[in-house]
Formats: sequence, C-alpha cells, structure tokens
Amino acid sequence: MGKRKKIGKIIPKMPSRFAKQKGKAPGTITYMGRRENLKSIVNILDYNENGFNVSAPGNVDAIVSHKGPPLVSWIDIVGLSDEAFIAKIGERFGLNPLVMEDIVNTNQRPKIDEYDPYIFGVFKMLYINQDKELIGEHIALVLLDNCVLVFQELEYDVFTGVRDRVTKKFGRIRSRGSDYLFFALLDSIVDNYFAVLEYLNDKIEVLEEAVYADPSPEVAQKIQELKKEVLRIRRWVNPVKELINRLIDTDHPLIAKETKIFFRDVLDHSLEVNDSIQIYREMSMSLMEMYMSNMSNKMNEVMKVLTIMASIFIPLTFIAGIYGMNFDNMPELHYQYGYYVVWGVMISLFLGMLVYFRRKKWI
Amino acid sequence: MGKRKKIGKIIPKMPSRFAKQKGKAPGTITYMGRRENLKSIVNILDYNENGFNVSAPGNVDAIVSHKGPPLVSWIDIVGLSDEAFIAKIGERFGLNPLVMEDIVNTNQRPKIDEYDPYIFGVFKMLYINQDKELIGEHIALVLLDNCVLVFQELEYDVFTGVRDRVTKKFGRIRSRGSDYLFFALLDSIVDNYFAVLEYLNDKIEVLEEAVYADPSPEVAQKIQELKKEVLRIRRWVNPVKELINRLIDTDHPLIAKETKIFFRDVLDHSLEVNDSIQIYREMSMSLMEMYMSNMSNKMNEVMKVLTIMASIFIPLTFIAGIYGMNFDNMPELHYQYGYYVVWGVMISLFLGMLVYFRRKKWI
Amino acid sequence: MGKRKKIGKIIPKMPSRFAKQKGKAPGTITYMGRRENLKSIVNILDYNENGFNVSAPGNVDAIVSHKGPPLVSWIDIVGLSDEAFIAKIGERFGLNPLVMEDIVNTNQRPKIDEYDPYIFGVFKMLYINQDKELIGEHIALVLLDNCVLVFQELEYDVFTGVRDRVTKKFGRIRSRGSDYLFFALLDSIVDNYFAVLEYLNDKIEVLEEAVYADPSPEVAQKIQELKKEVLRIRRWVNPVKELINRLIDTDHPLIAKETKIFFRDVLDHSLEVNDSIQIYREMSMSLMEMYMSNMSNKMNEVMKVLTIMASIFIPLTFIAGIYGMNFDNMPELHYQYGYYVVWGVMISLFLGMLVYFRRKKWI
Amino acid sequence: MGKRKKIGKIIPKMPSRFAKQKGKAPGTITYMGRRENLKSIVNILDYNENGFNVSAPGNVDAIVSHKGPPLVSWIDIVGLSDEAFIAKIGERFGLNPLVMEDIVNTNQRPKIDEYDPYIFGVFKMLYINQDKELIGEHIALVLLDNCVLVFQELEYDVFTGVRDRVTKKFGRIRSRGSDYLFFALLDSIVDNYFAVLEYLNDKIEVLEEAVYADPSPEVAQKIQELKKEVLRIRRWVNPVKELINRLIDTDHPLIAKETKIFFRDVLDHSLEVNDSIQIYREMSMSLMEMYMSNMSNKMNEVMKVLTIMASIFIPLTFIAGIYGMNFDNMPELHYQYGYYVVWGVMISLFLGMLVYFRRKKWI
Amino acid sequence: MGKRKKIGKIIPKMPSRFAKQKGKAPGTITYMGRRENLKSIVNILDYNENGFNVSAPGNVDAIVSHKGPPLVSWIDIVGLSDEAFIAKIGERFGLNPLVMEDIVNTNQRPKIDEYDPYIFGVFKMLYINQDKELIGEHIALVLLDNCVLVFQELEYDVFTGVRDRVTKKFGRIRSRGSDYLFFALLDSIVDNYFAVLEYLNDKIEVLEEAVYADPSPEVAQKIQELKKEVLRIRRWVNPVKELINRLIDTDHPLIAKETKIFFRDVLDHSLEVNDSIQIYREMSMSLMEMYMSNMSNKMNEVMKVLTIMASIFIPLTFIAGIYGMNFDNMPELHYQYGYYVVWGVMISLFLGMLVYFRRKKWI
Repeated sequence: MGKRKKIGKIIPKMPSRFAKQKGKAPGTITYMGRRENLKSIVNILDYNENGFNVSAPGNVDAIVSHKGPPLVSWIDIVGLSDEAFIAKIGERFGLNPLVMEDIVNTNQRPKIDEYDPYIFGVFKMLYINQDKELIGEHIALVLLDNCVLVFQELEYDVFTGVRDRVTKKFGRIRSRGSDYLFFALLDSIVDNYFAVLEYLNDKIEVLEEAVYADPSPEVAQKIQELKKEVLRIRRWVNPVKELINRLIDTDHPLIAKETKIFFRDVLDHSLEVNDSIQIYREMSMSLMEMYMSNMSNKMNEVMKVLTIMASIFIPLTFIAGIYGMNFDNMPELHYQYGYYVVWGVMISLFLGMLVYFRRKKWI
Repeated sequence: MGKRKKIGKIIPKMPSRFAKQKGKAPGTITYMGRRENLKSIVNILDYNENGFNVSAPGNVDAIVSHKGPPLVSWIDIVGLSDEAFIAKIGERFGLNPLVMEDIVNTNQRPKIDEYDPYIFGVFKMLYINQDKELIGEHIALVLLDNCVLVFQELEYDVFTGVRDRVTKKFGRIRSRGSDYLFFALLDSIVDNYFAVLEYLNDKIEVLEEAVYADPSPEVAQKIQELKKEVLRIRRWVNPVKELINRLIDTDHPLIAKETKIFFRDVLDHSLEVNDSIQIYREMSMSLMEMYMSNMSNKMNEVMKVLTIMASIFIPLTFIAGIYGMNFDNMPELHYQYGYYVVWGVMISLFLGMLVYFRRKKWI
Repeated sequence: MGKRKKIGKIIPKMPSRFAKQKGKAPGTITYMGRRENLKSIVNILDYNENGFNVSAPGNVDAIVSHKGPPLVSWIDIVGLSDEAFIAKIGERFGLNPLVMEDIVNTNQRPKIDEYDPYIFGVFKMLYINQDKELIGEHIALVLLDNCVLVFQELEYDVFTGVRDRVTKKFGRIRSRGSDYLFFALLDSIVDNYFAVLEYLNDKIEVLEEAVYADPSPEVAQKIQELKKEVLRIRRWVNPVKELINRLIDTDHPLIAKETKIFFRDVLDHSLEVNDSIQIYREMSMSLMEMYMSNMSNKMNEVMKVLTIMASIFIPLTFIAGIYGMNFDNMPELHYQYGYYVVWGVMISLFLGMLVYFRRKKWI
Repeated sequence: MGKRKKIGKIIPKMPSRFAKQKGKAPGTITYMGRRENLKSIVNILDYNENGFNVSAPGNVDAIVSHKGPPLVSWIDIVGLSDEAFIAKIGERFGLNPLVMEDIVNTNQRPKIDEYDPYIFGVFKMLYINQDKELIGEHIALVLLDNCVLVFQELEYDVFTGVRDRVTKKFGRIRSRGSDYLFFALLDSIVDNYFAVLEYLNDKIEVLEEAVYADPSPEVAQKIQELKKEVLRIRRWVNPVKELINRLIDTDHPLIAKETKIFFRDVLDHSLEVNDSIQIYREMSMSLMEMYMSNMSNKMNEVMKVLTIMASIFIPLTFIAGIYGMNFDNMPELHYQYGYYVVWGVMISLFLGMLVYFRRKKWI
Repeated sequence: MGKRKKIGKIIPKMPSRFAKQKGKAPGTITYMGRRENLKSIVNILDYNENGFNVSAPGNVDAIVSHKGPPLVSWIDIVGLSDEAFIAKIGERFGLNPLVMEDIVNTNQRPKIDEYDPYIFGVFKMLYINQDKELIGEHIALVLLDNCVLVFQELEYDVFTGVRDRVTKKFGRIRSRGSDYLFFALLDSIVDNYFAVLEYLNDKIEVLEEAVYADPSPEVAQKIQELKKEVLRIRRWVNPVKELINRLIDTDHPLIAKETKIFFRDVLDHSLEVNDSIQIYREMSMSLMEMYMSNMSNKMNEVMKVLTIMASIFIPLTFIAGIYGMNFDNMPELHYQYGYYVVWGVMISLFLGMLVYFRRKKWI
C-alpha cells in the first residue's frame, strides 16, 4: 500500500508560494517549481516565407538583436528557476511584473490576460512520463508583435510538430504572422490532451476488466485514484475552452480576424476534451458502483455456501444426536433395522434440501 | 464475459488522429475512419419544380458541369478514405481547408460553422446495425447556394425518405431552395434518433424485467453497458439542439426566413430527444438502484433460511447432547418415559420457534 | 408481477411516427394517437356580453358561417383520427401545415408557436382515469382573432368550469376577447395539474406508510414506478412555465396587455407545480433511501437472532459433547453430582450470555 | 409510529383550491386556509414624525377615514376567512381581483407583483408553534402611497418589534415613508427565518448525537422528516431572494432610491438564509450516510461475535464428537491420560483461535 | 465521542442577532461576536513615497487629525465589542448606519457595497488556531479617499506582510494610492486561504491513510467532520470571487484603472481556491465511498471465516454424530478398522473442502 500516489498532487502547493512570498509584494518573480538551480536555455527560431534561422543566444541582450529582419521570432525559454534571468527577459520585452510572476509560478491556473501590446497565456501541458505518471507541466506563452515567447519549466517538448512545420515548410505557418504561431502552439498543447485521454481510457478498460474478474480492495483503491486523476486533469483542462472563447471574441489588434477561424478549431477540440473528461468522470463513478455491486454479489455467494452447508447438516446432526442419547428406554435403538432407517431418513432429508435449494436456484 | 463490448468506443480515437497528424498542419485532410481504401462514390440529384435528374459522375470535373440549369443540386459523396478525391471536391466548391479536415475527421463532434458563401455542419447519424450494435456514423453537410453537399462515411442511408419526396414530388420540397433540402436532411437525421430511442427503450424494458426476475451480476453488467450507451448517444445528440438554435438565429443569407419555421420544427424534435435521453439516464440509474435493492433482498432471504434452520436445530441438538452425556448419575435417563418427554420438549420447542418466526413474518 | 405498468409509456412512441411518416414530407398530417377511426365531433360556443349560442355543425363549411356576429367563438374539436377532416379545418382557418401536423401528433412536446395571424399551443392535460392510471392527453389550442380552436383527442373534458362561466356568466369572461378565453382554457389545464399532484401525494403517503411497516420488494418496485411517473409528469409539465413566460413577453397583437396579468397568474401556478414535482422527486429518492435503510435494519435483526441463538447454544452443546465422550478415564463422570454441576455451569453460561447481549442492547 | 408527521403538509392543498373554485372565474376571492368563520380584526397605526395614533375600526368605511392627516397608515387585517369583508377592503383600496384572490389564497407561493398604484407581495412567516411544529403562515403585504396593508391569517405576530419602533420612536422609521415601513415588515419576516434555522440546527445536533449513539430506525425516520422540513422551508424561502432583488431593480415610484439600500440589507439576509438551508440539506444527507455507515458497522460487529463463537466452538465440538463415537476399536479411549490430552488439545485450539482473532483485531 | 466538534459553528448565530436586536431598527450597531468588553485598539500607519509614520491614538478625535499631510492612512481597529467607540468612528468617517451594523456583525456574509464616497467590504480571514481548529474571523474593510479602515475582531494578524512592505518599502505599495492598499489587504486575506487549503489537504491525506488501514467508525465520523469543515469554508470563500469580479467591473472613482489588473490577480487566486474546495468536496465524498467499500470488504472477510469454519466442521461433526448413536445393530462400529476409516473419510472431506475454498480464492 506504500505505493499509493499521494493525493497532495491534486492541490497545487500554493501555500508554499505563500510561504515563499511572505513579505514580498505581488508582482515579485518567485519560481514555484521543483527544478531549482537550472540555467535557462534560450532557443530562437526566426522565420518568414523565404527562410528560417535558428540561434541559441547566451545572454538576454543577444536575444533582442535577432528581432529585426524576419517576420516572426519564436523564442523558447526552457528552465524557469533562474529568476534574475527571467526578470531580464521580462524587462527586455516590457512585460508587466504580474505577468512575470505568473510565468514562473508553476502552480498558476490556466489563464489568458490581454495587455495593450501583448497577450499572455498560461496553460498546462499534460503528458505521461516514464514512470507512467501523469504530469501537468506549466507553460507560459506571450504573443507580441512578430514574436512569440514560450516559457517552459522542463525539457519535455510537445512542440516538435510545430517546429517541423516551420523548418520543413509544411502548411501555411511560414506565410502567417505571430498570431498563427501562437495558435499552432496552443493547438499542439490541446491536441496533446488527447494522448492523456487515451491513457485514461486504457486505465478504465483495465479497471473494468478487474472489477468483473476480481473485485479486490486494491481495485477499489485504483478506481479512487482514477477519480482523483480525472479531477486533476479537469482542473487543468476545464478553463481552456473559456479562455479560447475569449480569444475568439477579443478585438485585440494582435489577433487577426483570419486567424480566429483557427482558434475556433482549437475550441472545438477543447470542447471535445471536456466532453470526454465528463464521460470519464461518470464512468469512474459507474466503476465504483459496479465494484460495490460485485462485492455484494460475492457476499451473497459466501452466505449461500454457509446457509446450504448449515441447513443441510445441522438437522442431520440433530437426528444423530437423538440416537446418541443414553435413555434406558429408547425402543428404536433396539430395532433390527433402526440404524438403516435413520440413514434412510437422513439421506431423504439431504436430498430434499438439495432439491429445495436447487429450486431456489442457490445451487 | 468475453462478449462484453469495449468501452473504448465511447471516446473517439482522437489520439490516433494526433498520431496520424503529427507534424502536419491544421487543415490537413486526414481520414480518421476505419473504412480505408474505399473509392468515393458520387451521386447527384438535380431538381426543380418541373423535374429532376439523377447522375453519377466519375470524376470531380463532371460534378461541376451539372450545376447550371436546375434549381437545386443534391450531391452525395459516400466513402471518405480517398483523401485526394475529397480534397479536389473541396477545391472545386471553394471550401476552407479546416472544413475539409472536419469532413474526413470521423471523430468530429457535431458542429455548425458559418462561412461567407456556405454553411457547414457535422452530425452523427445513429442507427442499430445487423449485430444489434449502436453505430454513430459521421455525416457532413455543406449548404451552398443552390446546392447541398452530403459527405457520408458508410453506405447506410437514412435519406431515402427525402430522396423519395424529391423524385415522387411529395410535399413542398421540389418548389423550395437548397436551404429547404438542408433542413429536410437534418430533419431525417434527427427523426432517426427516435429509432435509437426505441432501441434503448426496448433494452430498458428487458433489463427491468430481468432485474425483478433474476438480479444476476450479468444484469448489473448490462445496466452499466446501457449507461455507457446512453452516455455515448448523449455526447452525439446533445450539441444538436444548440446548433439548430444557432441556425434559427443566424442572418446568413443562405437560410431564408420562410425556412426557419421548419428549423423550429427540427429544434422541437431535438429537444424531445434530449428530454428522452435525460429520462433514460435517470431510468438506468433507477435500474441499478433496483438491482442493488433486489440483491439486498435476496441476501435477506438467504440469511433468513440460515437463521431459521440454525435457530431451530441448534437448541434441539443441545438437548440431545445433554442426554448423550455419560454421567453415572443422570436420573432422567432411567425414567420410564424420559425419552418421550424429551421428544415432547423438542417438538414443543420446534413448534414454538415456528410460531415465533411466523410472527416475525420470516416464514 | 405481471401487473407492473410498462415503462414504455414514458417515451412517446415517436419512432412509430417515424415509421408512419417514412417518405412523407414534414407538415404531413398524420394522426399519432391510439384512438383510430373515430369521427371528429365539433361543438361551437359563440358568445358576447349579451348572450351565447351553442351549435354542433356537422361539416367544416358550417363551422365557418357561425363566425360572424358574436364576439368570441369557442370551437371544440374532439377526436383527431379523421385526418382529412382535421386538414379541412386547418385550411378553413389558414393554419400552417406544420401546425396541422402538430395538432394530430399526440406525442408532441408542449409548445407555443406564434404565427402572424394566430398563436398555436400544444399542452398535456393530465388526469387519473378510472383504472387509477395517469393519463397525459394531448390538447392543441389555436388563438385566432375572435376565435379559439380547441383540439382534443379524447372525450375527457377539463373545460366544464370554463364553459359554465361562459354560459352562466360568472366572472368577467363574457365581456372579454378571445385572448381571455385562451387564458381561461390554459388556466384550467394548469389548475388540473394540482389534482395530479394530489394523486402523487396520496401515493407517496401510502408508500411511506408501507416502507416503515413492511419494506418488501413490491414496495421498492412501487417506489421505482412512482419515480417514473414523476419523470413523465415533469416531462409534460416542465416546459409549460417557459411557454407561458414567452406569452407574457410577446408583443403579438392577439394578446392584449390587460390579459397578460392573468397569464402571470397561470405562470405562478405552473411555477408552483414545478416546485411540487421537484419536491416529489426528492421525496421519492428519500423513500428509496429509507427502504434501503429499513432493509438493512431487517437484515441486522435477522443476524442478531442467529448470532444470539448460535452464541448461546454452540458452547453449551460443546460442553454436552465433552461429557458424551467415551474415555475410560473421565473422573467427572463418576462424581456424585457431576451432572448437576454441569447443568449449573451451563445455566450460568446461558445467563451470562443473556446479560452480555442485553448489555449490547441486542435483546 | 402513529406520531409521524404527515408529509401532505409539504404540498399546498391546491387541489382543494381547485375543488373549491371549480366553476369560478380567476379573481374570485376564495379563502383557502383552515381557520374558517373567524371575523377579521382590523388594527390601524397611523404615524408621522410627530406622533402616532392607534385605532381599531369595526367596519370598512371606518378604515378609510383615518387615512387623511398622518404620513403613514399601517393597516393590519388579521383573519382572512370572511371573504366578503376582505373583498370590501380590496374595493376600498382599488386592488385588482387577482390580488384579492392571492391575499386569501393561503397556499400562494411567495411573490411580488407591481401594479400601477401599488406593490403587492405574498410571503411565508415561519415559526415554531407550541407543539414544536414548523408553521409557514401566509402573509400578504400591499404597499400603497402613504399606506401599508398587512393581511395575516393567524394571530401569531412577528411584527411586534416594528410596532415598538414606531410607537417608541426607535430608529428612523417614524421619519420615513410607507416604503420604509414595507421594508421594515419584510425585514422582520426574513429575520424571523433565522429562528427557524436555529430550530433546524438544534434538530440536526440532536440527530447527530443520536446517529452516533444509537442508529435505530427511528433515527433514520427522523432524518427523513428533517429532510422534508428542509424541503418545505426551502420552498417558502427560496423565492424570496429573487423577489427582493426585483424590488431593488424596480423603478416603481412607490419605492424611493434611499430605501433601496435597506432592501439590499434584506437581500443579504435572505442570501444568508438560502446558504444555510443549502448547508442543512447537505448535512441531512450526510446524516443519513452516517446512519447507514453506522448500521453497517453494527452489522459487522454482530457478524464478528457470531463468527468468533462459531469458529471457536464448532471445531471443539467436533473433537468432542469424535471421542463420543462408539467404535469398538478406538485405542485413544483407553489411554490413561487420553481425556486430559484431548482437553489440552481443545484448550490449545481455543487459545490459538483467540490469538488469531486478536491479530485480526476482531476482539 | 464527547470531543466531537459541534456543528453549530457552521450556521452563524444569527438568531442571537435577532434576539439581541429585537425592537431595534436596522442600522443599529450591535456587536455579534464572542469577545465582549474588550477595548478597541487603534493603530494608524500613514505613509507616502517619502516616509511613513506609525501612531496609536487613544480617542476618535485623535484619529482624524492624522489624515492631512500623508498620501495614505491605514487605520486599524482591533476589537469590535465597544459599540459606542465604533459608532463614533463611523460618524467621524461619515459611514452609513447599515455599514456600521455590518462592521460589528461578525456573522455577516462576505459582501462588497459601494457607497458614494467609499467602498465597504466584509470578508472572512481563515486560519488554524493553536487548538488546530479552523477559525473564520470577521474582517471589515472600508476604502476611502486616501484612507483604508480595517476592522478586526481578534488580535490575529494576517497583514504583517503588507505592513512590512509599507515600512520596508518593498514593491510599489508606497508609491500607490489607497486603492492599492485595499488590494494588498484583500490579496493577503485570499493568499491566507491557501494555508487553510493546506490544512484540509493534510487532513484528507491522514484520513485516506486511515480509511485504507483501519476503517473504524471514528474514521467515518472524521470524514463527516471534514465534509462539514469544507461546507463552512465554502460558505465563507465562495462569494469572494463574485465580489472581486464586481470590483473589477465597477466604475467607482476610488478604484483606479491601473489597480484593476491587480484585482484580476486576486480574482485568479480566489478562483483557484474555489476550484480546490470543489475538489476537496468531491474527495471527501470519495473517502466516504471508500470507507463504505472497505467496511463491506471487512464484512466479506468475516463472513468467509465463518463460512469456511462452519462448512468444514459441521459435516465432520455430523459424521462423528452418526457413530455416536447407540443403535444395537450398527455393523461399522464393530469393524476392526472402522474408526480409522472414519478418520480417513473425515480427513479427505477436510482436504476436499480446503481445495474447494482455495479454488474459490476464499483462502
């Protein structure tokens, strides 16, 4: 039982945030994650319709200089524990301190905030790690004019597909602006949710098999853990549909009207994800119900065995007890065939009980 | 137990979509269904008030040429696995790549999108196949000026009634525009949902009978499967009422004001379907509750038999045990009628217990 | 158990509609009810402030001629299976084919549709028939200028009160227009729902008594049936409040502003009905819960009897068994008062057990 | 069990209304309550900033004459069964017949209706009577210019506090208009709900104690009754917050803008009441859950006693049975210490079982 | 069991308010809390960008004089039982009597009311006291021009962080107006909720461990208490998100547009808190479910032990009983190896049963 996952994961460790920030003002950049002391790695992919350029500048000033000529800059920052470095990037791009706080607050709920010259979004990238655990990684996106900033906590990369589309010039991404890149990144985050749904689906199938085959308490425990995972995912995924809806309705100049039909597509997918999570919720409740009903059934069977054994042999033992009595005057004991008659009676009783229980469909 | 339907069906295999599309841009036409390598079949029904014409062009260019003279063209495309063919049709009618993606994405949630020169809708056609399984087939409709495109994955045809109305000139369909045809198709999809409701209704009646007659674990399992089927249907049917409502409120020029009162009729039916599904949900929960209560009841009966048998015979056996003891000095053993007195006591006890249990209404 | 009501009633037999209408256009007048081949009976009550006139014209043309002089005509058509006749009436009053379809579709959900020159409404009249069954009868009302058409499927008449008010000149009905008549009819339909609530109330009281007195499986079954009846009534009654609300908000010229305060009164009553149905729902769930808890309790009692009997007599039987052994060397057997000592021990044990169980409050 | 409260109380006896009013027009004044044949008593309290005057006119005409000089008249009518008298008052103040109907309809749901020259409200005054029963008394308030009419069914008076404030000149009531009096009355009705909450709270505390101490079926029954009481109160109290909200949003000239901030205060309290009732609902469900879990627990204990007794003594009895057999050749019987060895074996078994059950923590 | 926390805490003691205020007008300042007869302590912190000044005036007049020169005054009043003193402060700052009533009403639901020259808010500060009890302390905030009044019931201070930021000049607080101070206070109240979430989280983890290890009735009781705590917290925390939303939407001149993005940050946190509470609710329900399932499981095990023991030994005892009978003619008794054969049969039966139960996986 020691292998049970802790439920603490469901609730973001905000209190530690509170502890860390005690006495600090809102807008203070305080890294909340578990990967401390990692240097941030910056990768820049500049592209326009004619070509692309990859670079990995070592310092913040170098980041800026690339911004000039190309149409779109995709700036990827991996590792958020170097607070000073992140702060410098924020300054460089004129980001609000509250935005910077949210970028490094790995417990931040999914959100989209519109500021005058940029749009800021926080999402959870869901994936299953090598230990078959569900991870919800913090991702922050900033859409600027001709530029998208991507802040990631860990190396895990869900954006390979988008990068390939840029470098190999699949689809229309090279000929579009930064809002399309923003969409493409959001789209691949949401698409990734389906992999997690598949993982849940597999889990439910396994548990369903187990509930029918052997409703042990371990199965019940796993069903409860499944419920908790569904709760966690819902917490991360549920706000997304509303956020995207807001992006579709916005009149922020950075999001072109042509791009909005693509956001409608992402909205569709996130609705799909929400429907599925809702269904998983109901299915995990059904599983528990089925577990309880199978448990009852097993109990019923146990009771039947007991009842049949007791009902058959207790009366027979009674009869044997009668003729084990030591009264001086028990005429049956002296009959020639008394013993055989008693056997006959016992066997008849035995068969009668069998017939009775058979009729009741207990055996 | 091997015959249990897999629950995987409830969740569309979007992850495979994800797998298939990895590295592809949104708007890429990727067939998601299970009927691979089938040539698409095109049927065209052109009609106006004066007559109608049926044709089955072999290539995409042939499709176009029919569009001129008649009032309305109903173009039926069956089989969606030939992605190149579908793409050509899309180009021919100027459809957006995202629309084309949704046309072949057989896992697409029901939706209606309005574009400038056309209205695009995806629905699920529900029916019961030969193996008594519930199938939700992907249908895509495109309403253009004077033309309706229908994309179907399988041959199963729910539109025979509409086709007959056109060819046999029942009702007003021949004298109306393409919006009326669009309505008629939508109407027959929704009408078909009632057949599925009937199927659910029959299932519930059978299960209800079974729950009362013999609450075996198989029945519980079937109730759970019913619940899952209701979940699946709800997922497919629930969005429809909202979509139709949006069609009624739209000011898209392709939908004439006169046609909208017909859409109100479809809306009515889809509300009806939603009410019914809600009721089925509650009834399947009631069934499970009834199952549990009947199980409890059976357990109660088993326990009663055990208790009655044990309560009657254990004391009697004790009495027999008493007089089976071998003490030297047990005066009762030597009484002339000791044995008969003991029998008398036992029979009195036996009858007393019977009366007691009868009073408690246990027998 | 054969007397159980079929649940099929909950779900309107729309599929048969579908079957009947296959190949027919929407707007086709197809009677959906069970009372086939009945001639429609028409009754007309014309009235104004000064007097009233009753007539029963045999054909449709006769219906019209009465329309001239009086202020308001109340035209009652009972029996909807004569489709041709109904169609003629529809034509005579210029009703839309979709309206005519709904008039004879006895499975139609409650609705109100406003058309330019008339308002059309479908409702369910609920009553308890002679077999103590709950009937939801289809009623269609059409409010025209100076005229109200009432289409009823069966003879059962809920409108006697309204008719009396007209003929005996109670209240203000004679001095008001057709909108007031429309209101009065609607009001008596909704008022009648209270009689059904009373019927449910009585049922719940009886079941509650039964749950406490004797929680047999039949009671559980009746509770489930009650739940289904509540579901059915909710389906018929729930939409009404919204429909009336729409009538209050409408600016249709046929409904005078002075009449709207009366509709507010009906709205009040329908809210009341909805509240009550909601409460009945929760009470029927409570009943089932109570049933389960009483079942558990009965089981507890059965188990206690078993446990007490077994716990008392099994140890005693063991003691008797000891002294029934045939060892050569068992000194106790030869003690003068061994037998009596054993009896003493047994009686002490017996009393000790009684005290123990009494302390545990099991007896 | 005969003392159980009838559930009929939850559902207002509207059907009897229906019975009484059959054939009467809406707007007919028909008293619905249980206190028939009581003469209405009228008390008038006229006041302005300078003084107040109390009078108890015997007839309706006398009521009117007092209206002239003072700023505000508070007219209290207790007893609603004298329909003719009530009707005359209605006429005197120009009230709509529908209003008059609602004034005497003691089953009326809480409501507020605005008419041109007055505002009409119906509420439930909740209190606990001498028999510790929850009573929901019908109160109707009419706010006129410079006058508030209060119609009460019974003598129970919740308005003493308000009356004292007027006569003893506490607070600002004497210097304000009739809208402030209307507010003050409403406020004391809502404040009184808290006393009922206290009563529920006490009930829950007692039941909670009982559930832990002795989960008898009577406790379950009382929990169910509590649930029903909560349902009843919710029915009476729930609409109030919406009604007050409507008063705050109204632009009716009788309610001054300065008075509205006081209505916001009442709104606050009614939200509070609603929150509490919601919590009581959940707590009564928790109680039932706890009851079920305690029942299970008791059953578990019963089963453990049975299992321990049977598991210990049945094997021992078997051993005794062995050596009670009468085979000629049973060498053990003839051993010198056979009997003692058997005792040793039995005692070892007995102790072994004790250890086993102790380890399982069953004893 | 005497240590159980009383549930009375969930429901604010409003009835006592009612009792206390009987005969008093709304707007009367009546302290509702439990800390009677405590002198109010006033602390003033005046600050602007250049410096700050701390003072603790002894009387109300002294409070005012500090208001002149500095930019922002933060006036802290701890202890609300001195009603006259509080009233004087209210007068001094021109607060509405209803506001003053709410300031001392420690049962007031969270609220925000906008008045012309100030904004008034009531919140609950949640913390865990030394006895590990959850306390919801009443806090009232008044935002005036250049001044924020803070009314606290107890000494517990959640605002140390904010005070430090002012005095040590962390962040931007010193350079901003009173609206920013108001935000900062609100922010630290909401941040504190996370500490309470942590407390709940720990409780759930402990209970979860306990449910799996030893599902005793005490655990069930603790789960129910957890549920009640969650209900209480929800009651206090739930309204906050709506209130903050209202502050964001307001156009009250005291809240500058620049400050609103900070309120959006608090909103974010309160949404987070609401999500978490919702999850805790579902988790506590899951815990109870798990508890019930584990109880069932334990019962199953008990029954299995009983059934195995009884099923094995009752038939064996029967056999022994047979050969304990005293018939004259029982040939088996005289067989040389009869006794050994019987032993053989018994052992075979015993082993057979073991195999049978092993196959059923009961042992």
